[in-house]
Amino acid sequence: MHGLKEVEVWLQTFAPGTHTPIHRHSCEEVFVVLKGSGTLYLAPSSHSKYPGKPEEFSVFSNSTFHIPVNDVHQLWNTNEEEDLQVLVVVSRPPVKIFIYDEWLMPHTAAKLKFPYYWDEKWYQSTAKDEL
Amino acid sequence: MHGLKEVEVWLQTFAPGTHTPIHRHSCEEVFVVLKGSGTLYLAPSSHSKYPGKPEEFSVFSNSTFHIPVNDVHQLWNTNEEEDLQVLVVVSRPPVKIFIYDEWLMPHTAAKLKFPYYWDEKWYQSTAKDEL
Repeated sequence: MHGLKEVEVWLQTFAPGTHTPIHRHSCEEVFVVLKGSGTLYLAPSSHSKYPGKPEEFSVFSNSTFHIPVNDVHQLWNTNEEEDLQVLVVVSRPPVKIFIYDEWLMPHTAAKLKFPYYWDEKWYQSTAKDEL
Repeated sequence: MHGLKEVEVWLQTFAPGTHTPIHRHSCEEVFVVLKGSGTLYLAPSSHSKYPGKPEEFSVFSNSTFHIPVNDVHQLWNTNEEEDLQVLVVVSRPPVKIFIYDEWLMPHTAAKLKFPYYWDEKWYQSTAKDEL
């Protein structure tokens, strides 16, 4: 929306118990936890046909994570008391997200969600301008 | 240092009265102010031979700025009481910074500082590995 071609930054807040979908994207991601705590599930890329059992990482205020390109991951706010707030940085905007129903779903069955929710308004207005 | 090829994220803290050099870089930058307040000076790109008088923007907690590619800029902590803390996102790591002594210095005279201070250790160890 602001004309950036190489980086995209968003602030995301998760209420207690909420989470991202299980997903992947073919761009680099770094996120920094500003508030709260939770769990990052990350399935390292491999040559198998589905993500498989992910590794678990505790995340908390000031922790920083790098998600390698195309690694399948999910972030949960597992803290019952507090919001989890993260600043997310991704390359190659706008982000194209492939969503999995579960960790054993084949990569080829993951569904593209594009534009992603927060890009919908921008994307629709851009499309309109081209008419 | 972490193998990222498309984005670089750093946390920078300025004591009261401190500032970046006047500088430019040929990458995109977004920064988010986490704490404190200050002033951003930004000279929009033009066809002149030097940056010229910059525009001034107040920055404060939660404000977000986009620095267009190659625009000359400087960030000051003008708050006498508090640190200014910013999360800086740039594309195309590692950052190559061209430094100006003043706003009327010709672009062609700006000096390259590479590797930048926080990349020095990483850069030297990489160079060593190649011997």
